[in-house]
Amino acid sequence: MAAELIKICQTRAHQALDQRLPAAELHPNNLHQAMRYAVLGGGKRIRPVLVYLAGHAVDASPDMLDGPACAVEFIHAYSLIHDDLPAMDNDDLRHGQPTCHKAFGEALAILAGDALQALAFQVLAQDPAMIPDPAIRLRMQGVLAQAAGSRGMAGGQAIDLAATGRELSLVELENMHIHKTGALIRASVLMGALSQPAVDATALERLDRYAKCIGLAFQIQDDILDVTGDPATLGKTTGADRVLNKPTYPVLLGLEGAREHAQMLYEEALASLESLDDKADPLRWIAAYIVERAY
Amino acid sequence: MAAELIKICQTRAHQALDQRLPAAELHPNNLHQAMRYAVLGGGKRIRPVLVYLAGHAVDASPDMLDGPACAVEFIHAYSLIHDDLPAMDNDDLRHGQPTCHKAFGEALAILAGDALQALAFQVLAQDPAMIPDPAIRLRMQGVLAQAAGSRGMAGGQAIDLAATGRELSLVELENMHIHKTGALIRASVLMGALSQPAVDATALERLDRYAKCIGLAFQIQDDILDVTGDPATLGKTTGADRVLNKPTYPVLLGLEGAREHAQMLYEEALASLESLDDKADPLRWIAAYIVERAY
Repeated sequence: MAAELIKICQTRAHQALDQRLPAAELHPNNLHQAMRYAVLGGGKRIRPVLVYLAGHAVDASPDMLDGPACAVEFIHAYSLIHDDLPAMDNDDLRHGQPTCHKAFGEALAILAGDALQALAFQVLAQDPAMIPDPAIRLRMQGVLAQAAGSRGMAGGQAIDLAATGRELSLVELENMHIHKTGALIRASVLMGALSQPAVDATALERLDRYAKCIGLAFQIQDDILDVTGDPATLGKTTGADRVLNKPTYPVLLGLEGAREHAQMLYEEALASLESLDDKADPLRWIAAYIVERAY
Repeated sequence: MAAELIKICQTRAHQALDQRLPAAELHPNNLHQAMRYAVLGGGKRIRPVLVYLAGHAVDASPDMLDGPACAVEFIHAYSLIHDDLPAMDNDDLRHGQPTCHKAFGEALAILAGDALQALAFQVLAQDPAMIPDPAIRLRMQGVLAQAAGSRGMAGGQAIDLAATGRELSLVELENMHIHKTGALIRASVLMGALSQPAVDATALERLDRYAKCIGLAFQIQDDILDVTGDPATLGKTTGADRVLNKPTYPVLLGLEGAREHAQMLYEEALASLESLDDKADPLRWIAAYIVERAY
């Protein structure tokens, strides 16, 4: 059930992204090809899926969700391009294909990431497939900019850089992930929910709590898969965290401890949704998917 | 007169930028220090100056201009950080100081640029020192995102990459600069003018024409200074264009031809402002400054 629903959202997201990316023939085509390659090459589309499902949970019109879904995925895709660069994680493989800088060179990869970040904000400013109220759009811009910036995702990367090669406590590790991946996952859920103009503060707060929990659970599962996962299924090399001496949940808690921690967060995520009706069921399913996934 | 006025705007811009950058002590402080270093380390602040002066020309309240002035300068500063990277222009010196990656390492420099772009859009979404009308703010977001993106500044960089080492026609060179530097200069003037809610379409169109002309003139002068300028006055190495075999105006037109081209654009910029009253005088002065500057 969850798998089918996720598949539908993924297909919708892929189409929406394809439509919003500049055409490969459009000048400057080297840049546009690199942008399309990085975004359309693959990916689980977890963030767009969360936009769609959080919107569904509060009865937002599906036609209002393609804009924010694409905006958040463009931010995610740019962060992966920059994260893979030789000066950062130096990865050769992403979604089973050469990373953007391996395919297009470092300079163009940097620019493709930069242009995708701008495109995310352009979509929120101008896209017809989202809520028309400019005050709500502006609120989403603020949510997304904060989530992407130095107190969000980019900040998390900087914390990660400073942490590589040294021991972290669980609190420090959690703080890193709250910034690095958690901020954008929370933004996805919030932007989906904000697409319903009648959404109230209590519902937003509960959805935000849900998003915090699944964001961390998602990261724990990522760390676990880096130890136990199959490179062919994952489409990327495994064991990279250990090679780079990165702090991870399995290192700090052991594999079993990490699994228990993810399970606890899963239960807290479900509890946060308690007062929401069955329109929130897909959010419940995706929480389960996140802690059970093998890729 | 122009010099004094520019100085006042520069001082105001510096203060506004300082206030809006995250404090150096704020976590993650490595990232915030790199961001502050890159933005506050120097620069002519041409783009914020243009926001202030275009706003002045249409009688916008000065208190509405700090937000857009900072947003556009954050975009500019991020582009310089990324442009200086080893994979791009590989510059060691910027504003007479080590470039951001020389001072903080490549990884942190990439992130500082990324976070500054997000900060620009956060300012436009949330800053109190700009026009409150969300529809106008959203329009500015669109203007800035387009100017920064693949059909604007980032696109211009990609055109530049593809052009290095090969002959360009004057039309191709102009097209590159219209994207690379022109788009953000036009955005600066437009955002200043949009800060006056009563501005009409004709005034916007004339200011946009003015901005197009001075944007190109600015670039021509940059190319000329790379040949004739004093590294100590400029605060950066000269001759880099020739070393990298970059197409420039002096290469295509000769030094004298490049100067004449800049002069012609200056006169067209003035003609575009003809119907505007003496509140547009500072824009006239800055046009003259741009073609006469030695740094």
